[in-house]
Amino acid sequence: MIDKKGNIIKPDFVELTRYAKQFSGLTTEKENVLLSIKEEVAPLLGAVTDNFYHTMNDIPEAASFLEGRITGLKQTHLNWMNSIFTGPYDETYTESMYNVGDIHVRVNLPVEFMSGGITLICNELYRITFDIYGNNPVKTQSIVNAVNSAMGFSLFVMQKSYHASVDEALDKFLLITGMSKALFEKLSSTFSTTNF
Amino acid sequence: MIDKKGNIIKPDFVELTRYAKQFSGLTTEKENVLLSIKEEVAPLLGAVTDNFYHTMNDIPEAASFLEGRITGLKQTHLNWMNSIFTGPYDETYTESMYNVGDIHVRVNLPVEFMSGGITLICNELYRITFDIYGNNPVKTQSIVNAVNSAMGFSLFVMQKSYHASVDEALDKFLLITGMSKALFEKLSSTFSTTNF
Repeated sequence: MIDKKGNIIKPDFVELTRYAKQFSGLTTEKENVLLSIKEEVAPLLGAVTDNFYHTMNDIPEAASFLEGRITGLKQTHLNWMNSIFTGPYDETYTESMYNVGDIHVRVNLPVEFMSGGITLICNELYRITFDIYGNNPVKTQSIVNAVNSAMGFSLFVMQKSYHASVDEALDKFLLITGMSKALFEKLSSTFSTTNF
Repeated sequence: MIDKKGNIIKPDFVELTRYAKQFSGLTTEKENVLLSIKEEVAPLLGAVTDNFYHTMNDIPEAASFLEGRITGLKQTHLNWMNSIFTGPYDETYTESMYNVGDIHVRVNLPVEFMSGGITLICNELYRITFDIYGNNPVKTQSIVNAVNSAMGFSLFVMQKSYHASVDEALDKFLLITGMSKALFEKLSSTFSTTNF
């Protein structure tokens, strides 16, 4: 969102953290599950990152965004993967995820890339979970649930930023044209019914 | 997207199916895993739907969208949950998910609601997976992977529709104002650096 002078208003990250935790089921118990396995999963996270970018690079629509940037992106990604198991899931983490979402919007990355990316990363994280803990169903279940909520939390915050950026674009449009929001909405609805 | 006369252009659903399957890792093998357990999971899907709406109703930001509509929404949701295990994941399914995304946009549902919703539903689907198959790690792993990809596929398509609707709003704005896209982008970038 932007104010009347065009300054970008950042959200309240403490409140956004509460909201995103509720919408992803990320509890303190699940955070503790992730922290408790950080040493055991750390050596496998390099392969998670490598496999993720290998899959992405096979998708023509994604490959063009990666060209010439994979080495740098992989390092950032690996740091992020480690942070999933070290936490803390506080307002600082939320702000960093919000900024990642914002960067994705500014390079015109389609919003569905973020959800697709999270799905592919979860595929990898579940693979290593079953590789290490598959014979302990209680532990495996607690990790799968914790990973799902932590990755869901991250996606939620990134997409919150996307939504804010879309609102911002509309606000800018109204400021540039001097049109009121009410008038735009009226014209827009007339337009979609009559195709003038 | 809309054409120059304001008519909405639907995507090629065969191509979108291919693209979304690649971006979620949804393979024929995974589809077959889901089909193979449809009878066993079906009796538990009512609880998945009930628990999902119970959680959503506790989130103040979501509750206002649900008021007075839960009974109808639950039936639609339960039908969808069943279809996750019956397939087929073809262009007809893709088109229906695209239309669901489109409806979400038109009622002004924030885009992050869709990703949050999928995370909460996955929490529930993993719960019943471990309840039924927890003692068989190979089977449990194959189901978790298949559910993650199938739900990721559905989210990807819904959000593709969201992205298209945002483009559509911008296109409409340009048609209404008679402004060229190049001029808008120029004004928009000047605006964000000078806050005029």
